Amino acid sequence: MSESLDPSSYRELLRRSLAEDLGAGDITTDTIVPAGRRARGQLIAKAPLVLAGIDPFLEVFRLLDPTAVAEIGRKDGEELLPGDSPVEVHALARSLLSGERVALNLLQRLSGVATLTRRFVREVARTGAQILDTRKTTPGLRGLEKYAVRVGGGRNHRKDLAEAVLIKENHIRMAGGVAAALEAMQPAKGRVAWMEIEVTNLDELRDALAHRPDDHSPIVILLDNMQPTQVRQAVEQVRHAEDGRRGPAYDPEKRIRLEASGGITLANVRQFADAGVDWISVGALTHSAPAVDLSFEIEPA
Amino acid sequence: MSESLDPSSYRELLRRSLAEDLGAGDITTDTIVPAGRRARGQLIAKAPLVLAGIDPFLEVFRLLDPTAVAEIGRKDGEELLPGDSPVEVHALARSLLSGERVALNLLQRLSGVATLTRRFVREVARTGAQILDTRKTTPGLRGLEKYAVRVGGGRNHRKDLAEAVLIKENHIRMAGGVAAALEAMQPAKGRVAWMEIEVTNLDELRDALAHRPDDHSPIVILLDNMQPTQVRQAVEQVRHAEDGRRGPAYDPEKRIRLEASGGITLANVRQFADAGVDWISVGALTHSAPAVDLSFEIEPA
Amino acid sequence: MSESLDPSSYRELLRRSLAEDLGAGDITTDTIVPAGRRARGQLIAKAPLVLAGIDPFLEVFRLLDPTAVAEIGRKDGEELLPGDSPVEVHALARSLLSGERVALNLLQRLSGVATLTRRFVREVARTGAQILDTRKTTPGLRGLEKYAVRVGGGRNHRKDLAEAVLIKENHIRMAGGVAAALEAMQPAKGRVAWMEIEVTNLDELRDALAHRPDDHSPIVILLDNMQPTQVRQAVEQVRHAEDGRRGPAYDPEKRIRLEASGGITLANVRQFADAGVDWISVGALTHSAPAVDLSFEIEPA
Amino acid sequence: MSESLDPSSYRELLRRSLAEDLGAGDITTDTIVPAGRRARGQLIAKAPLVLAGIDPFLEVFRLLDPTAVAEIGRKDGEELLPGDSPVEVHALARSLLSGERVALNLLQRLSGVATLTRRFVREVARTGAQILDTRKTTPGLRGLEKYAVRVGGGRNHRKDLAEAVLIKENHIRMAGGVAAALEAMQPAKGRVAWMEIEVTNLDELRDALAHRPDDHSPIVILLDNMQPTQVRQAVEQVRHAEDGRRGPAYDPEKRIRLEASGGITLANVRQFADAGVDWISVGALTHSAPAVDLSFEIEPA
Amino acid sequence: MSESLDPSSYRELLRRSLAEDLGAGDITTDTIVPAGRRARGQLIAKAPLVLAGIDPFLEVFRLLDPTAVAEIGRKDGEELLPGDSPVEVHALARSLLSGERVALNLLQRLSGVATLTRRFVREVARTGAQILDTRKTTPGLRGLEKYAVRVGGGRNHRKDLAEAVLIKENHIRMAGGVAAALEAMQPAKGRVAWMEIEVTNLDELRDALAHRPDDHSPIVILLDNMQPTQVRQAVEQVRHAEDGRRGPAYDPEKRIRLEASGGITLANVRQFADAGVDWISVGALTHSAPAVDLSFEIEPA
Amino acid sequence: MSESLDPSSYRELLRRSLAEDLGAGDITTDTIVPAGRRARGQLIAKAPLVLAGIDPFLEVFRLLDPTAVAEIGRKDGEELLPGDSPVEVHALARSLLSGERVALNLLQRLSGVATLTRRFVREVARTGAQILDTRKTTPGLRGLEKYAVRVGGGRNHRKDLAEAVLIKENHIRMAGGVAAALEAMQPAKGRVAWMEIEVTNLDELRDALAHRPDDHSPIVILLDNMQPTQVRQAVEQVRHAEDGRRGPAYDPEKRIRLEASGGITLANVRQFADAGVDWISVGALTHSAPAVDLSFEIEPA
Repeated sequence: MSESLDPSSYRELLRRSLAEDLGAGDITTDTIVPAGRRARGQLIAKAPLVLAGIDPFLEVFRLLDPTAVAEIGRKDGEELLPGDSPVEVHALARSLLSGERVALNLLQRLSGVATLTRRFVREVARTGAQILDTRKTTPGLRGLEKYAVRVGGGRNHRKDLAEAVLIKENHIRMAGGVAAALEAMQPAKGRVAWMEIEVTNLDELRDALAHRPDDHSPIVILLDNMQPTQVRQAVEQVRHAEDGRRGPAYDPEKRIRLEASGGITLANVRQFADAGVDWISVGALTHSAPAVDLSFEIEPA
Repeated sequence: MSESLDPSSYRELLRRSLAEDLGAGDITTDTIVPAGRRARGQLIAKAPLVLAGIDPFLEVFRLLDPTAVAEIGRKDGEELLPGDSPVEVHALARSLLSGERVALNLLQRLSGVATLTRRFVREVARTGAQILDTRKTTPGLRGLEKYAVRVGGGRNHRKDLAEAVLIKENHIRMAGGVAAALEAMQPAKGRVAWMEIEVTNLDELRDALAHRPDDHSPIVILLDNMQPTQVRQAVEQVRHAEDGRRGPAYDPEKRIRLEASGGITLANVRQFADAGVDWISVGALTHSAPAVDLSFEIEPA
Repeated sequence: MSESLDPSSYRELLRRSLAEDLGAGDITTDTIVPAGRRARGQLIAKAPLVLAGIDPFLEVFRLLDPTAVAEIGRKDGEELLPGDSPVEVHALARSLLSGERVALNLLQRLSGVATLTRRFVREVARTGAQILDTRKTTPGLRGLEKYAVRVGGGRNHRKDLAEAVLIKENHIRMAGGVAAALEAMQPAKGRVAWMEIEVTNLDELRDALAHRPDDHSPIVILLDNMQPTQVRQAVEQVRHAEDGRRGPAYDPEKRIRLEASGGITLANVRQFADAGVDWISVGALTHSAPAVDLSFEIEPA
Repeated sequence: MSESLDPSSYRELLRRSLAEDLGAGDITTDTIVPAGRRARGQLIAKAPLVLAGIDPFLEVFRLLDPTAVAEIGRKDGEELLPGDSPVEVHALARSLLSGERVALNLLQRLSGVATLTRRFVREVARTGAQILDTRKTTPGLRGLEKYAVRVGGGRNHRKDLAEAVLIKENHIRMAGGVAAALEAMQPAKGRVAWMEIEVTNLDELRDALAHRPDDHSPIVILLDNMQPTQVRQAVEQVRHAEDGRRGPAYDPEKRIRLEASGGITLANVRQFADAGVDWISVGALTHSAPAVDLSFEIEPA
Repeated sequence: MSESLDPSSYRELLRRSLAEDLGAGDITTDTIVPAGRRARGQLIAKAPLVLAGIDPFLEVFRLLDPTAVAEIGRKDGEELLPGDSPVEVHALARSLLSGERVALNLLQRLSGVATLTRRFVREVARTGAQILDTRKTTPGLRGLEKYAVRVGGGRNHRKDLAEAVLIKENHIRMAGGVAAALEAMQPAKGRVAWMEIEVTNLDELRDALAHRPDDHSPIVILLDNMQPTQVRQAVEQVRHAEDGRRGPAYDPEKRIRLEASGGITLANVRQFADAGVDWISVGALTHSAPAVDLSFEIEPA
Repeated sequence: MSESLDPSSYRELLRRSLAEDLGAGDITTDTIVPAGRRARGQLIAKAPLVLAGIDPFLEVFRLLDPTAVAEIGRKDGEELLPGDSPVEVHALARSLLSGERVALNLLQRLSGVATLTRRFVREVARTGAQILDTRKTTPGLRGLEKYAVRVGGGRNHRKDLAEAVLIKENHIRMAGGVAAALEAMQPAKGRVAWMEIEVTNLDELRDALAHRPDDHSPIVILLDNMQPTQVRQAVEQVRHAEDGRRGPAYDPEKRIRLEASGGITLANVRQFADAGVDWISVGALTHSAPAVDLSFEIEPA
């Protein structure tokens, strides 16, 4: 799970965003600023934040002006304080003025995701729990937002529907119950990165344990919308089941893992971590992270 | 209440979002649910919200299954309470299960924008002020998010850099001051929908009033990052200037309008409205609106 | 011969009909026929008929399989004999088998309407009378059935309550008589395609003639539930009234037209036509036309 | 198989039908009748008929005027004579006038279906045969028409393609014969309400009997387009086959049932019943039932 | 560079081509690749070429899978080198594999036309001559091939027999000579885009000049199957005739234009251009352009 | 594999081609030539060629004028020299003039395919190799072009994706290798005309031989883009494998066949034939055959 991004993965998004923002052309800039004039732009944090997305930020200006160059002082993942200036760009003045909004829109969003992730990660420090994202990402930004989660210290859940099996409530309803759904998945076992099933109460958990495929795909059980006390009981139940499996062939790498999700906030995340789950997934990391405040000050070179 | 959206404007975004989420294919669904099986999915509000984006929500399922049909009970712009079910979709079960996340991601975001806009609009009720969005939109979603702002009762600011002139601080710095920037815009007057200049204090406002182009484009002055008391003074200053222009040829339609922006929240927006500005623009409408909570329950047809 | 139909006007109806017929999925077809298998289906007339609705018939298969293609040998409006095959469809076998019933249900109904219309039109050949439909159409099929009437050689009466004024018996009763009803319509004159009033005897006809609005909307008098002999007297009475209006400003285009309706069958329609009316409207064209017999034979491609 | 209807199942259809008929608005009524005026409408039979659809009839007026009330004298399923008035509606005059056509169109059609069904049911009285409908229903009216068949005394065949397996001639052709088609259905046995296969001659019947799945789904054999004498032979052949199965484990509930279809009219239906079949299905019940004559007389309240 | 194409103009051709290539279904792909599996296909140039037909190429995959999306790097009209990859498609794996041949067949042909056209256009660079196509197009592909000629830099001759008058040798023979043919065309003058006559030697040219209609349709004379030296003489002869028409009313826009056709190759086209003709039409552009080499590499998503 | 064509297979194509070429009507012909006038047209070869497509050529004129008659002197497959006139048509002059281009466009293309095929066939004379076409045909002309290949002396490869299994490089890549692809095809063995797999080097050939299904479908191995020397080695390798299978049950009809494809030209085709392959497939036969030169001279009857 690498923390860098291939520029070819976001260049098309930047092109579309520029087309969207430029429309028939930036009439203000093109009228006020002569074509060949060069300038420098300084990125400035206006609030505490975790930086994420410096590369796509700069790529915007490179698309508008291939001669753009940058002095990079701070890297993705570093924490900035108000007034910090992580990067300075030198380029044609028009490209700085016309690209500013697109570049900032993306950077403020990605840094917002990284900043919120970092706060969740801090809350669960020194428990065994990891903070994960979900597939509740902005349409078109999946790869970038999952990168920002990693930058913030989080771990990525499935990148798409093909990476792992996750049997959710709707699948269970279509299959006719937890047992039937697990049964139907038999042919897929061993062919996927991991297999996971969502349960919403302790009875369903019992069913899932009873019908877990005895195979080589790691298995995860997702405890959805349970309270911390219930989660603690679920952890006990699973430990008990694991104890029953121990023996000479027991491979601790293949133990059942537990994930908590649903209704988790900065205020209560620690309780879930203390309850003993392995993973805590938080949709808000990507669907509701507020943008962080950054400005871009442009002046004559 | 608001213009509608042409499906061709968002169909490509939906295709890309599906490609992003499906990856190499939805292995869970394809294994559990047979190909020809049909089902129905019910959208359910889990919190109070203003609905926005029902059409693109449904279009996701139509892309996956051209025979998908919907029973639409509630329209964009209506306020839902928890438990309300605005729409039910009948389609191939696989298409409902595989399209759910993409469809919800967009709907939850757009309804989030509409919901936050509606709250701002409520706060300024019965003042003359209008709530506007900005260009701080999600990359790739400009048109949809601006639609959601209209659905929420807001007004759209520039849709792109070509729709109107807006001379911002960076332009002023490049031009060498307010007077020089306005001077440079002379050739564009009469050719754009409106012309606007950003000022950050009362001195700059005086400069802007002194050099305003005497032309047929409506003019707006943007008061950026000022406190409500300063804004009130600015309103006085502009009224005074307008009084000086009155005479037989005076056209009230062409009076100078004032916009406030920067640091505006639900807690203080009323103070800005009471100060007498015409427009209040709020970046958070699109860059920081939290997603609203909606679920999609799928069951056998 | 007749206007064509915009597919977007009936596509939603087809989607709903498919949802209605597929329910939870076509288990017979999905079990017997493999997914990628292609086949051809041949439409065959089993009785003499006038064809109407080939386009929506084909659209059903295109909704289920966008690659469906057709060889079209005969067009809407043509008369078929038993054994004639007007069209052949090539598509995925499953889409032909699962869509057959929905496609045929609509085609058999629309061709039934066209066939019955053609028979009425033949009966009044070489009289000045035209055969019209009514608003007694199948719920949800108004546009398609009115199209089938045109295909059969008939003329469309009002497509909806907004297209023209038609003062019926119930209106007259609510208004308190023919004279009062016509008086009330004065403000609408000149604003509608035409104005019409229903009378049920010669006294009401006299009233209607006496109070006809002297305006620019063409006027029609509907003789409801009268016998052919009475109708003949009504025609005389109107001709007499018209003669009284002749003079230098007389515009024959604006003469009063007469419509007969109520109790009209294939056996007596000629008598009404011979009595001299302009229009004969027949509810049975759309509310009681028997479906015509067509089959769809599917075999391996 | 209940005989009542959930209003939510037809409300959307009524809304569509009203939109279709009202177009830009009922100009006649809105001009002649003042907004607040109330009236009463009396439904009157003009011919003998079996009533079906009183609830949707009234719902039309409730949609236009939530204060509409009715006095209901006769219920669905009762036989009316000319002049009988089964219901009276009190509501805003405009809603009665503007809703009349939509309400009647549906009621006349559904009562037409019930009336024709009742006539077929009478013909086969005191034989063991039941009259069934088919899937040859009006697009969008499946549920309502199948209800009208029940009201008339008939039994419903499959409500959609998912309720039961029915292997028709086209399936047999695609599978390569009766035996191959039945073989392909093996995996579905036990999972569907019943399993049925269409045969068109006694040879195919023999094949079907030879390859019938020995399972728990009830089985039906559909004799398509056979003459009554052939049908009688088929009945013998099946009885003979059944006799061969008798023994201690024989369950008469699971005996093979026979259905006749194709070319069945009021004139010959008794012959098919006398030949000994269990079911007789008649497409004309829904695709060719003539509308029955009912009028709605509105007068000042 | 050139007008674009409306997808509705070629969608039916693509459907037919798919039906033709799929036959009873792609048994190889349907057996090897599971239904929901997604993949990406990369188009790769294997030789230098001018790209034409990217939109219909992609539409093939959209017909097979409405969720197909593309990353388009190069546009119609651009010149590719071996190894260049102008487009990447993401879609269901089956749709990529089953649509590949149809999509490539069209793209290789259209790019072949554009590539050959570009070579002819290059040969006549900086002469006044334009390269035109003819009506010698592939049956069913007229519109697409004429588009490819424009993409290559050529100009379109008549799109069909209705766009302009062109009196060819066979017409002249039926009319009884050049003079009689031109005489017969008098009634059409002024009603067509332009009028043209084919001559095969200098005597016929003289006749054509003597009888040219004195009207407002532009006139063109087609020199068919002449050698460059003869063409040069014809150019002189026409210039001389034009000189005789000069005067105050002379409109140079209406001067006679000359077209050369017949036996024109890449080796001799420059000689015809240097001889002074306005248009050079080349049947080979569409009837004999070799397909260019492009491959489509498909791999798991 | 018959060499004649059913007119119903190309009549629709001719209708489309005529519609495409006639547009709003042939204004030149209709103005110059009176409606009832008859004429004769003589087809004349302008270069050496193999004739193919006389029937569709004549059918064009029959569609325009059902009274058209022909005197046919030479048949499809015969070789013509310049000046030869294989057919003369007598019909309405307008139909000859208006149909000429469509008729010639098809004939010149099909004869072009037959002529090029004949040249390849000549090159491999008296080797055991056969020349085959591919699926690289003109969209919409598959059947006609495959006919022209037969006329030229070639053999047809798969007519569509359903006729035989051919596992190509893209399938192998999706399956994860030659062995996995052949494994996946097991269920299809015995159900298809033949099974073929593409290999690009000797290692893949070894894999294919090792995993060949031991069944009743004939098997072919396609050597793609190999040099003649490599092909010769492949032939040896296969012969060796065959020798290993010999025994009492050996059926020489079921021996493995080898096909060469890719980069084959008139200059090198003999080398491939001499290397010992059974089949040589050449895409250029249909995608790049130049049209042959034929003219149609029309004169008064």
